[in-house]
Amino acid sequence: MGIPLIRRLAVIGVGLIGGSLALALRRAGAVGEIVGAGRGAANLELAHARGIVDRHTTDLAAAVAEADMVVIGAALGATADVLRTIAPALPPTAIVTDVGSTKASVVAAARAALGADFARFVPGHPIAGTEQSGAAAAFADLYVRHKVILTPVAETAPAALARVRAMWQAAGADVVEMAVHDHDRALAATSHLPHLLAYALVELLAARPDAAEIFGFAAGGFRDFTRIASSNPRMWTEISLANKAALLDVARAYAARFEELIAALEHEDAALLEAAFGRAKAARDACLLPESNARE
Amino acid sequence: MGIPLIRRLAVIGVGLIGGSLALALRRAGAVGEIVGAGRGAANLELAHARGIVDRHTTDLAAAVAEADMVVIGAALGATADVLRTIAPALPPTAIVTDVGSTKASVVAAARAALGADFARFVPGHPIAGTEQSGAAAAFADLYVRHKVILTPVAETAPAALARVRAMWQAAGADVVEMAVHDHDRALAATSHLPHLLAYALVELLAARPDAAEIFGFAAGGFRDFTRIASSNPRMWTEISLANKAALLDVARAYAARFEELIAALEHEDAALLEAAFGRAKAARDACLLPESNARE
Repeated sequence: MGIPLIRRLAVIGVGLIGGSLALALRRAGAVGEIVGAGRGAANLELAHARGIVDRHTTDLAAAVAEADMVVIGAALGATADVLRTIAPALPPTAIVTDVGSTKASVVAAARAALGADFARFVPGHPIAGTEQSGAAAAFADLYVRHKVILTPVAETAPAALARVRAMWQAAGADVVEMAVHDHDRALAATSHLPHLLAYALVELLAARPDAAEIFGFAAGGFRDFTRIASSNPRMWTEISLANKAALLDVARAYAARFEELIAALEHEDAALLEAAFGRAKAARDACLLPESNARE
Repeated sequence: MGIPLIRRLAVIGVGLIGGSLALALRRAGAVGEIVGAGRGAANLELAHARGIVDRHTTDLAAAVAEADMVVIGAALGATADVLRTIAPALPPTAIVTDVGSTKASVVAAARAALGADFARFVPGHPIAGTEQSGAAAAFADLYVRHKVILTPVAETAPAALARVRAMWQAAGADVVEMAVHDHDRALAATSHLPHLLAYALVELLAARPDAAEIFGFAAGGFRDFTRIASSNPRMWTEISLANKAALLDVARAYAARFEELIAALEHEDAALLEAAFGRAKAARDACLLPESNARE
């Protein structure tokens, strides 16, 4: 074996996302030592017991002190704090990356926290996950054949970008690059808005006096449609606010189109409804990945 | 073996729903002869070849002429025509039932078409199905542990209701009774509105110049959320129009609540968003059936 891609990896937040990356990199022989850090000692101990990390600490600055790669796997709402905490302790050659679901907000936080070291920060977002969370849920195959989006900015050092790309490829992912703005618009449309829509439906129905009865008659389509309404409420509040501008844009466009469909229903415009439904079916059948790849 | 529950069953529309019922009843020994009828000769021949029906015809009146039970499995938009066609040919003791997704519209059509025989019509709606359709997709287990809702009205003969109930129970279903209005309101909320919401989202995004790109980055949550947007556009146009009043009510309530969530996002009201998302998560986690029963 040669020198591993990463000598010492620091994972801040050893949950499903960070923990699975650690497991994948270890299996690939791409990492020497893995240090786990975070606020929850019990989760870190579990990560240690599962062999996800070699060492663990709740002192974030200590965790990054000798790392050459730092992955921030913490919740989006904690990322700015994490960046400020680790900034003074970062070794001069360490590369930092994140896994947040929105990128403009993280880029702004990193630029503010890291100063001149911002060139070594590579914004990232793996399109993978399950309904589970925590180190208990981590598994080495999470990223295999899943996309990881990197959104480098003008200041991002090409060498840092290349190393983060190599890291995710070693974990089995397909790495793509997008502009920050394009990422945030795309994810607002395909992830953040659907969450808002599903939460709104279940919350509306749950408030009805006949809620228990109507949920009792719900079929598989309702279960599929509302699965994302079981997601973590705080995490999705943070994501919604962090991507406010892009989410508002697409949510308003959606509300306007939905009103048009309601008007068509009121006027019994069958042709309009059937044409709209038909365009949706054609797009969904043609454009989406096979169901076999349907983990989030 | 004693006398079967149904001596001669006529299934008008031998698709997934009608064909699966025929297979289940045959397996249960609950039926003597099964006659399949419909417009599509190829589908009927396939149903015959698969052993779903013993005989088949495109002459609906001939199909029901000697039946003691008639199941209308045709599309909702065709049900009124089917009722008018078979009415003059119904034997004096035959019971008629349907499988339509809306019930007020079907009850009105049946009352108009059947006259004095309306007492022998039992409105029904099995909460089961898959994305597949046609006789090719039928299977005997479709209704096992699935709900079938019957919505008798004041005129419905108790004996007719009892026989239709026994038929679905023989097919493995859990039969429940609801008022027509309650059924239509519940299904508008948990089935018809989600379809409208999913169609609206995919249609909106498909119209964007970056549609292919954003669908390419869609994760499992989007796939789940939009699965019902692959449903048959004509069928869902018919359902939406047939249940117009109830669907408009819940769609307008939804649009109003969604506007409130958009306003909360605009004002960065994290507490409101997190509370709404939390109520949705709690309701979804508590009220829905286990995933293992997640066929529609």
